[in-house]
Amino acid sequence: MASKLPSYKYFNVTFPREYVAHVETNRPDKLNSFFEAMWLELRTVFNALSDSPDVRAIVFSGAGDRAFTAGLDVKAASQGLLSPAPANGKPVDPARVATQLRRHIDEFQDCITSIERCEKPVIVAMHGIAYGLAIDMSVAADIRLCAKNTSFSVKEVDIGLAADIGTLTRLPKAVGNYGWVKEVALTARVFGADEALKVGFVSGVYETKKETVEMAVELAGLMAQKSPVAVQGTKELLNYSRDHSVKDGLRYTGVWNSAAVQAKDVSVAVLSGLEKRVPTFEKL
Amino acid sequence: MASKLPSYKYFNVTFPREYVAHVETNRPDKLNSFFEAMWLELRTVFNALSDSPDVRAIVFSGAGDRAFTAGLDVKAASQGLLSPAPANGKPVDPARVATQLRRHIDEFQDCITSIERCEKPVIVAMHGIAYGLAIDMSVAADIRLCAKNTSFSVKEVDIGLAADIGTLTRLPKAVGNYGWVKEVALTARVFGADEALKVGFVSGVYETKKETVEMAVELAGLMAQKSPVAVQGTKELLNYSRDHSVKDGLRYTGVWNSAAVQAKDVSVAVLSGLEKRVPTFEKL
Amino acid sequence: MASKLPSYKYFNVTFPREYVAHVETNRPDKLNSFFEAMWLELRTVFNALSDSPDVRAIVFSGAGDRAFTAGLDVKAASQGLLSPAPANGKPVDPARVATQLRRHIDEFQDCITSIERCEKPVIVAMHGIAYGLAIDMSVAADIRLCAKNTSFSVKEVDIGLAADIGTLTRLPKAVGNYGWVKEVALTARVFGADEALKVGFVSGVYETKKETVEMAVELAGLMAQKSPVAVQGTKELLNYSRDHSVKDGLRYTGVWNSAAVQAKDVSVAVLSGLEKRVPTFEKL
Amino acid sequence: MASKLPSYKYFNVTFPREYVAHVETNRPDKLNSFFEAMWLELRTVFNALSDSPDVRAIVFSGAGDRAFTAGLDVKAASQGLLSPAPANGKPVDPARVATQLRRHIDEFQDCITSIERCEKPVIVAMHGIAYGLAIDMSVAADIRLCAKNTSFSVKEVDIGLAADIGTLTRLPKAVGNYGWVKEVALTARVFGADEALKVGFVSGVYETKKETVEMAVELAGLMAQKSPVAVQGTKELLNYSRDHSVKDGLRYTGVWNSAAVQAKDVSVAVLSGLEKRVPTFEKL
Amino acid sequence: MASKLPSYKYFNVTFPREYVAHVETNRPDKLNSFFEAMWLELRTVFNALSDSPDVRAIVFSGAGDRAFTAGLDVKAASQGLLSPAPANGKPVDPARVATQLRRHIDEFQDCITSIERCEKPVIVAMHGIAYGLAIDMSVAADIRLCAKNTSFSVKEVDIGLAADIGTLTRLPKAVGNYGWVKEVALTARVFGADEALKVGFVSGVYETKKETVEMAVELAGLMAQKSPVAVQGTKELLNYSRDHSVKDGLRYTGVWNSAAVQAKDVSVAVLSGLEKRVPTFEKL
Amino acid sequence: MASKLPSYKYFNVTFPREYVAHVETNRPDKLNSFFEAMWLELRTVFNALSDSPDVRAIVFSGAGDRAFTAGLDVKAASQGLLSPAPANGKPVDPARVATQLRRHIDEFQDCITSIERCEKPVIVAMHGIAYGLAIDMSVAADIRLCAKNTSFSVKEVDIGLAADIGTLTRLPKAVGNYGWVKEVALTARVFGADEALKVGFVSGVYETKKETVEMAVELAGLMAQKSPVAVQGTKELLNYSRDHSVKDGLRYTGVWNSAAVQAKDVSVAVLSGLEKRVPTFEKL
Repeated sequence: MASKLPSYKYFNVTFPREYVAHVETNRPDKLNSFFEAMWLELRTVFNALSDSPDVRAIVFSGAGDRAFTAGLDVKAASQGLLSPAPANGKPVDPARVATQLRRHIDEFQDCITSIERCEKPVIVAMHGIAYGLAIDMSVAADIRLCAKNTSFSVKEVDIGLAADIGTLTRLPKAVGNYGWVKEVALTARVFGADEALKVGFVSGVYETKKETVEMAVELAGLMAQKSPVAVQGTKELLNYSRDHSVKDGLRYTGVWNSAAVQAKDVSVAVLSGLEKRVPTFEKL
Repeated sequence: MASKLPSYKYFNVTFPREYVAHVETNRPDKLNSFFEAMWLELRTVFNALSDSPDVRAIVFSGAGDRAFTAGLDVKAASQGLLSPAPANGKPVDPARVATQLRRHIDEFQDCITSIERCEKPVIVAMHGIAYGLAIDMSVAADIRLCAKNTSFSVKEVDIGLAADIGTLTRLPKAVGNYGWVKEVALTARVFGADEALKVGFVSGVYETKKETVEMAVELAGLMAQKSPVAVQGTKELLNYSRDHSVKDGLRYTGVWNSAAVQAKDVSVAVLSGLEKRVPTFEKL
Repeated sequence: MASKLPSYKYFNVTFPREYVAHVETNRPDKLNSFFEAMWLELRTVFNALSDSPDVRAIVFSGAGDRAFTAGLDVKAASQGLLSPAPANGKPVDPARVATQLRRHIDEFQDCITSIERCEKPVIVAMHGIAYGLAIDMSVAADIRLCAKNTSFSVKEVDIGLAADIGTLTRLPKAVGNYGWVKEVALTARVFGADEALKVGFVSGVYETKKETVEMAVELAGLMAQKSPVAVQGTKELLNYSRDHSVKDGLRYTGVWNSAAVQAKDVSVAVLSGLEKRVPTFEKL
Repeated sequence: MASKLPSYKYFNVTFPREYVAHVETNRPDKLNSFFEAMWLELRTVFNALSDSPDVRAIVFSGAGDRAFTAGLDVKAASQGLLSPAPANGKPVDPARVATQLRRHIDEFQDCITSIERCEKPVIVAMHGIAYGLAIDMSVAADIRLCAKNTSFSVKEVDIGLAADIGTLTRLPKAVGNYGWVKEVALTARVFGADEALKVGFVSGVYETKKETVEMAVELAGLMAQKSPVAVQGTKELLNYSRDHSVKDGLRYTGVWNSAAVQAKDVSVAVLSGLEKRVPTFEKL
Repeated sequence: MASKLPSYKYFNVTFPREYVAHVETNRPDKLNSFFEAMWLELRTVFNALSDSPDVRAIVFSGAGDRAFTAGLDVKAASQGLLSPAPANGKPVDPARVATQLRRHIDEFQDCITSIERCEKPVIVAMHGIAYGLAIDMSVAADIRLCAKNTSFSVKEVDIGLAADIGTLTRLPKAVGNYGWVKEVALTARVFGADEALKVGFVSGVYETKKETVEMAVELAGLMAQKSPVAVQGTKELLNYSRDHSVKDGLRYTGVWNSAAVQAKDVSVAVLSGLEKRVPTFEKL
Repeated sequence: MASKLPSYKYFNVTFPREYVAHVETNRPDKLNSFFEAMWLELRTVFNALSDSPDVRAIVFSGAGDRAFTAGLDVKAASQGLLSPAPANGKPVDPARVATQLRRHIDEFQDCITSIERCEKPVIVAMHGIAYGLAIDMSVAADIRLCAKNTSFSVKEVDIGLAADIGTLTRLPKAVGNYGWVKEVALTARVFGADEALKVGFVSGVYETKKETVEMAVELAGLMAQKSPVAVQGTKELLNYSRDHSVKDGLRYTGVWNSAAVQAKDVSVAVLSGLEKRVPTFEKL
């Protein structure tokens, strides 16, 4: 499988187990902070994994000891997000700047949304600094784990803006304590692993980064053993239901499964269950 | 009251207190696992209780020591859900199978939704094995209690399919930890009463099944003493609001209460409050 | 600033810190219970604070030692909510009463919604009795704190009606334990500060009322130091996202920020960050 | 086929062509006016036709020369819709009456919605008087034809109520002239076939009732020759799209067709097209 | 009645028939063009009429021979909409200007929405010039009539902006020809009464302004004779249904009518119908 | 400008006027029927035009005398849409085929949606055969014109499937006669230019193809003279409003215009209007 994927510039993609891909942001000397070329490549990576029949679950982490990611590379970003270059060097009015900014934000959002849109479950393993974009990216994933030393912050108000790449939209739907979401988003205060666990932002806290990544791989490996038809359907139906009424969710589910339960996986799974052995499912 | 309801084949319906009905799945030798005739009858039961002026709150549990329900009776289901018989014995194509499956799932969903649609609050008291359909049914209810020995599982991925009878639609709206929902739904791992309590899937854990059911009856009894106009309105408005914007929720609430607050219950309740006695409300 | 706002009849409005307003319900001898003139004035107060460039965060509490608010003043309300006076003294039919009631509820809801609609974050500091309307008002705010002695109740079913001023609509979106919401709303049982903290209804519990209000002022002060463009955008985008799909939330966010990130606040904040000093932001 | 369906009390069901059912309201002496037993049976009829593999398109008309239907049988209805009998003969308050009425209206709506929910296209052929319920029923159908002599009226305001069985909900989505909808609904004025054609309420006007029904059968026959997978999918996707955003509509369509285009009908249809002969499709 | 309403500065309000109010914009020398004080007063007028039990239907027209309204008074508006005065005379950045503009547009929209929110049907009678705001206001009304000489234009793109007071939101929901809406909105071209009639933007075209207003009064008079419970319910349910799915529309309708059909109007109307006389309904 | 765009394989892109692009499908010998590489390139073309500051309006037509497009190239499509190649040559089950199909349809839909997503208005000029995909593409555009000889058909049911690339989703929102939409979609019958005009599917019918294209260019030219900020905002707000409630539409409009009305275009346009000359707007 590794040989089938191209190699990437800002991300290491490895395959620690059968059907499990591990994506690692690889800019540790800059605390894995992001600039535009990186999030464009991030989308390329997740789109490829989404389509690959050799991948059934994904772990996402950051290289180095210090940070999952410190967020936006402010220096690089200041040439992109904050002040788009006027076309042709002419001064532009606020409406034209707004158009450039809107396109820029849309593109940026779409890159991060590629994590959510990815058909396979994505487990984020965080450590060290996890600021700003770290929250945007991790709430686009399915499950969040972290090391004890992780420090989180919805950092955006500290640089004078409202978070616009997904945090304000997805975080309230990921944890059930709306007052807490408002507090951390309105103050940008740093919070730690224990608090993240208590409010349900992360599902597990581990001693070290290494252990966190191992647990994420373990969890991904467990999902990768299940029927890919069942797992990918489950991710899709949960995401759909989050954004729709129960009525609409049930209807969509019925239509979805009218094709999905025709998979051989059902009889394979049931039979393996009876025979108490690990089932093998055809690629999807 | 007991005499007014017909007796049912798969469910015991009793009346432990005034205005409180207790529905018990009665197939303990098969771990209260369900097949089609059972969920059709379940709907009949809940429709009848929904309309009965003699019922104000409902407890739902399973007979026997071992299980609330082990879920679908796989053997029976394999003739229903998984491979609908071709019409006239002729081979059918995937589109025609899909039509049969969609109708089947719609009907099945509607039966379980009868718990949610029921105008009276439903409190589920679980114990022992509570797998698959156990989750679908309990998230359609209003309040979940369980015994210490309960083991839960969103079991469907283990039989090769995405849960389609309500779990994936309602569970994310019942608990506020979306990462946890994804984890248990994508791995089918078993979790216990303590974990269920911690994430808010259940509201209380009790020593034994007996105690759990008693607490459920106690809680139901408390609700049954209140104005039925107020209680049933509260259930309706909470369910409506879950699926709508705050704007729409407030508007619907205003229209609903424009009739409901004309009930004599308001003056009855206020007066009883002042006189410190238990009010008596007219049937609804 | 204090001089710029008119003085109010039922509320004390003070300015404990720069850009922080403190609104205090001032009817302690009646447990701060509300009647119509009060909620009309509440809207006037919050509308004024919402527009004032001198206010960036708001604390809301109740005067006296005994209660944040005991809710509706039943005696006063009985002349308003429960039995609107027939026009011209003639007997009216239920449909006409319903029209009066609907208008009445709409107006009442709109007054309480002024807290949510207020462009600045609102932190509620509760103590003592916090019943009925206390819940409606506090869930319309952004963050809830309380003193150890606070006792809460969704009291409405005890007076024979379903809560209609916001509790049933907003409470399920504020905490992530839907079963708990149903239980407290269907039984009207009293719960304390610890339980409120555990389910995430409040974000912090403090020893005394005094300490609670101080903490709220502290938190408001922290928000007031941030860019008002960033803070007010964050409140708006979180509220919008709560009621819309992720897709819609991201789109709205992009359009919103296409104007907002043109604020000078971004460069001011980044520069201050680099220079490790507190930034000063222009009024909004 | 005729032999497979039970015979009905208030409706004649015949099969003028292969795969075409003709439902005729049969109470001509009372201008085909409806009372409760009739709309309950109407649902029974349409549910049966919806499921029958022998039916691919349906024509709906009224017996006799004078009326498609004059609407509600006011005399019968006055014992149902307008004043539900108090339970146990005791006087009931407006809130309890409202509960009875709401259940009654829900049931009534559901019966009429069975026309829309029916998986097969329904073509209504109207003549003579078509008042009140005539509009409710015909807008729940897919296509409306009428004879020259038809006189229509959204009659409800003339009997002191807002139409509540579907007209106000579906009529604005059936025709594109919202001002016209408001005018006819707010005045109850009678309009004729030509006006109905001009605003798009009906698709065709014919000389006589006989001709109208024949044209409806013709049209139904044409649909019945097409692939039932394609036709039923088209009805479903059009109805879904009416009530959802384009984004949601496209997504649902993709999931739906992921099963549907696996039908053999596609190759059968393409091949028949090349060979210029009428295709034969397997039952659905 | 006339004596009960205050007199207004920019609008004449008269009562040509019992229960019919006629609102006339009274700035004929300036082609009835609008500035801020006028739309604020417009809201005051429609709010008062909405609440008055003496009003059951409303006609809205413009004084003078030349124009229903030429739209925004560009000179006045240029001090409001287009460049809000910087607070304290200091230069402001685009984000702060955006905040001022957003509040300004919200307020402006709310004033025009008062026509739609008005509980009584509003019939607009247009003549002469009907540009820009004329379209915004008329699509917020229920029914549009016009004189032969009316010339319409969605004028906004000609002054460099997208219409933001309601035209782009409501016009596509008022007429069923979306391509036509796009064309007139994207080109700002003038269109006449005949074209307006053909696409269903107006319901009737009359020879003169006088005749148009008379017809509007006639139509309003007809509505004013009907049960106000029925008429106002019909307006509300049509507006609600426009913005919701059929499912939601039916449910809201059922709840609404559970109070409304308890009106005495039903028996009054039925009885009058049988006795062939004009019914008299109690005020609402 | 022409020199700035790359040349395309299946489409001619020319610039008949300043700021006006003309896209012409160029496969006349095959009646401009589409296969996968073509719709992928179509998206590339419209994405490029959407971003180009040199383009303000677009005309879309088909080369040759015989057809706008005959729709899908059935031969080519049969290798794509109808039977996706099994991965690795192994037989696949219906669930896996469904996954391939769903991805395929999603991609196809996204390509056609690029017309709607394009920030500039798109005017379609049709002639001759306009079947199947012709309808999908033209309803994704803003305005439809056609030559007298055009014959239209929602052709899909004739090849055994429900249209899934946009027709069933967008057509009901483009024309206001829902019964007509159902009829043509359920029967696949051919309809001509006059009928298309009558129901509002096209906005104008012209003698010849040449004349139709000229009129489209004329119309595009008119739009291209207006402020691009105003025109592109108008397209966006109309599309947004089609899919949202009036409430949501107004709110989004206010936020959008809070940036857009800061454009210099407003003063440029107003000034040009006063001076009666054609304004010149800065590129966007």
